[in-house]
Amino acid sequence: MNFINNSLGRKIPDQVNGKPIKPFKGAFADEPTGKIAARSIPTTRSRGRINKVVSGWDDLLKKLNLRSGMTVSFHHHFRNGDYMVNEVMTRLAGLGLKDLVVAPSALFPTHDLLVDLIKSGVISHVEGSMNGQVGVACSKGFMKRTAILRSHGGRARAIQDGDLHIDVAFIVAPTADELGNANGVNGPSACGPLGYALMDSQFADQVVVITDNLVRYPCIPWSIMGGNVDYVLKVDKVGDPEKIVSGTTRLTKSPTQLLIAELCAKFVDAAGFVKDGFSFQAGAGGISLGFTVFLGDIMRQKKVKASFVHGGSTEILVNLLNEGLIDYILDLQAFDLPAVRSLRNNPRHIESPPFSSYLQHAKGCLANMLDVGVLGATEVDLDFNANVNTHSDGLLLHGTGGFSDVAAGSACTILTAPSFRKRIPIIKERVTTVTAPGEAIDVLITERGICINPRRPDLYDRVKNAGLPLIPIKELMEKVNSITGIPEKPRLGDKPVAVIEWRDGTVIDSVWQVLD
Amino acid sequence: MNFINNSLGRKIPDQVNGKPIKPFKGAFADEPTGKIAARSIPTTRSRGRINKVVSGWDDLLKKLNLRSGMTVSFHHHFRNGDYMVNEVMTRLAGLGLKDLVVAPSALFPTHDLLVDLIKSGVISHVEGSMNGQVGVACSKGFMKRTAILRSHGGRARAIQDGDLHIDVAFIVAPTADELGNANGVNGPSACGPLGYALMDSQFADQVVVITDNLVRYPCIPWSIMGGNVDYVLKVDKVGDPEKIVSGTTRLTKSPTQLLIAELCAKFVDAAGFVKDGFSFQAGAGGISLGFTVFLGDIMRQKKVKASFVHGGSTEILVNLLNEGLIDYILDLQAFDLPAVRSLRNNPRHIESPPFSSYLQHAKGCLANMLDVGVLGATEVDLDFNANVNTHSDGLLLHGTGGFSDVAAGSACTILTAPSFRKRIPIIKERVTTVTAPGEAIDVLITERGICINPRRPDLYDRVKNAGLPLIPIKELMEKVNSITGIPEKPRLGDKPVAVIEWRDGTVIDSVWQVLD
Repeated sequence: MNFINNSLGRKIPDQVNGKPIKPFKGAFADEPTGKIAARSIPTTRSRGRINKVVSGWDDLLKKLNLRSGMTVSFHHHFRNGDYMVNEVMTRLAGLGLKDLVVAPSALFPTHDLLVDLIKSGVISHVEGSMNGQVGVACSKGFMKRTAILRSHGGRARAIQDGDLHIDVAFIVAPTADELGNANGVNGPSACGPLGYALMDSQFADQVVVITDNLVRYPCIPWSIMGGNVDYVLKVDKVGDPEKIVSGTTRLTKSPTQLLIAELCAKFVDAAGFVKDGFSFQAGAGGISLGFTVFLGDIMRQKKVKASFVHGGSTEILVNLLNEGLIDYILDLQAFDLPAVRSLRNNPRHIESPPFSSYLQHAKGCLANMLDVGVLGATEVDLDFNANVNTHSDGLLLHGTGGFSDVAAGSACTILTAPSFRKRIPIIKERVTTVTAPGEAIDVLITERGICINPRRPDLYDRVKNAGLPLIPIKELMEKVNSITGIPEKPRLGDKPVAVIEWRDGTVIDSVWQVLD
Repeated sequence: MNFINNSLGRKIPDQVNGKPIKPFKGAFADEPTGKIAARSIPTTRSRGRINKVVSGWDDLLKKLNLRSGMTVSFHHHFRNGDYMVNEVMTRLAGLGLKDLVVAPSALFPTHDLLVDLIKSGVISHVEGSMNGQVGVACSKGFMKRTAILRSHGGRARAIQDGDLHIDVAFIVAPTADELGNANGVNGPSACGPLGYALMDSQFADQVVVITDNLVRYPCIPWSIMGGNVDYVLKVDKVGDPEKIVSGTTRLTKSPTQLLIAELCAKFVDAAGFVKDGFSFQAGAGGISLGFTVFLGDIMRQKKVKASFVHGGSTEILVNLLNEGLIDYILDLQAFDLPAVRSLRNNPRHIESPPFSSYLQHAKGCLANMLDVGVLGATEVDLDFNANVNTHSDGLLLHGTGGFSDVAAGSACTILTAPSFRKRIPIIKERVTTVTAPGEAIDVLITERGICINPRRPDLYDRVKNAGLPLIPIKELMEKVNSITGIPEKPRLGDKPVAVIEWRDGTVIDSVWQVLD
């Protein structure tokens, strides 16, 4: 393995797990060639009813074609309430399988027990987002091979383009029928959309639907289609939908966060985005929810209606929908139970899988139709490169989510963050890890001022007389550093434990081993 | 070109249009190999809003990559009310293109002007269903190459498996947005589902959405997804949805048809199918609608509810849905405007494209979940082989529709037909053309008696004491022949003008040139 520098000057390996990589060259610079992945042609060899329900775990594992080194995939709609990743991986370990590649759309702290399977060699590495101790284990060099982090759109691209070949997809479904049609909106464990699993269902060699609510055909809506499914497994309980609410998904009471949220709403208004038919995505963090509330107030005052908001969906967003301030919520992920109910019952609350939401390798997607994307970050640097994956201590603690996709697509991408957290400033000369390039980040909004990317003089002109606390990013960095001091750099090794892919599949940065 | 006999003893060419064919070997005998078709990887190369709306026909035709010999596709949801096939083909002819392959899901009498384009060499042949003079032109040998007829599921299979490669798909959409998301349920020309165009949108090299109702993003529902669409063209009027009602789509007053419909409902009841959660598909012909009404009466008496009915949908079916006698209508085609309204407004009326409805080369489809399929035919023979494509005069006048798919999938397939039409008996020693093999046809119901396929002694046992007029098929044939006499055989040439594909892509029969 040799190292090269990509167009951002980041040092990256020239190959990952034995395959040559493509270095990042710019947010839209890569020109894909070739064809999308093609799966084997399946067939139906009988008349009359088809029933794919297996008798239990043993029957399922016997029927599946399993081997060491294979790639198994999961989706994260249950977030920290998921029961099935641990269950499946423990059972695969029990079969003596080794070197498995785990390809979840995301892992959460509830999956921390996978660390043992990493250390024992059952799991060679993860291709997917890691939130929690699995990320720490990766940072510390415990994975046998190099982890690959992708955005939600990037994961869909990798599956579509054949870079991530899935041998078995395990799809956890709150409701399913005997043919394998499945959805997330009905049943006692209803969790909302199932979109993150859609590409898996379409491209994996073998597809398993695991449900705790088996209904008679047809299961409607059929977010996952039975024509793509091999086996259906009924279990007692697939997960705890109460836990799709994460700690961050609450309206903040922090005066700092509220100030940032309000500044953000004022900025969006001053920049002229709040007009009839506009669109935004803000996510479910404390600042984002606050922004949504403040923006709602402005929309009410101006009597302006949004054409759509892209979820993650929350009760706050659902209330705006029900109030008539939004035409549609387009949704990849429910963050609370009112959002699940809304998706089930409101015909203006629509499931949008990564194909329609985020896929760069399609003929356009929703991200491009966003006027405003409001995102959080752990770090941003003087060139507006953003980091959402690692902390300043170098630890890989967060997945990319839709960050890259929204940043690259939306007409105006705004980062909101406190100027420092626990005396760690958010603005760096150079971020620890680049998740998204500065060309995709237009504005940084902190409680100490708003920094506009010099690449966007148009935005500056639109807000310069609005009385907003505009400040050059270098000046803000120095101001914050003078309060916090400059923190020590982490001790990083020279082994890349993970690479960060840009949404087009090029490598935008490496994540380096953290030394003790 | 040489000729071979397939497993039904039908004489077929060993190649079609220069490609070797696979002979039919049995309804479920073919074992597909290889991969599904893979299209080139597209990409998005810009930030912010995407607008694919072209300024008009000239702009569109300039942007498209067009050449002689290419394949262009259409869908038939507007049936005889479609305006766009003629418009597009006339414009392509105006560009001087020749030898075009027209691949519609179906053509109707409104498209009879294509005959001129066939005669002048603009169109080399049709791969798709032909209802009307285009079929007559094919029968008379006017097409330069051999036409290929496929069922709805077979067409989806051919596109998926790469046997039917589409260069440009023209998708007529009653509502669309600037990204190309489109549906058939909204707008002044609402026609119902758009499912027949779905595979085209996913596999064609270039995809055009033509609409007369351009709405702002997002167009919801997005039956066709913008991520698959290249261009959007706005025209004044795409078609006349009043004309999706065909002449046959009316409840019959014919005593013969009503008798057949009633016998059919009684048979289905006597055979034990009418129980809670059962399912059926009956179509929209006069006998089928009558059957649906009689069956509704039985369901009411027995207080039995169907889990689903597969459309084509009609007002009669919609009334059963609204009455609560059916859980879901799953729908590929609206046959009248009340059905269009129901699909738009009733969350239990669901669009089901050929993938989920009919695709044999998937991991199961709806057709297999049908308990009862009630179908019409032009001829049936002593081995229960069925013909829906040609008349006894040899003329190719009808597409296959979902016939093969329902016949092969449903647990009990019933043909309903008058024992003779215009003194032409329906039962032949040997049908003019085999559309579906006798192994997929279980029962023939005529006004003069019910014939059960000897392959289904189980069905015979279930109904033998129910007082139904059961009669061996040979006896019924002789009885009818004694009334009508045996009609003269048509004068057929030795040139195959078309082949009939079974849904798995094997050739089940040839259609021979009709000599004057």
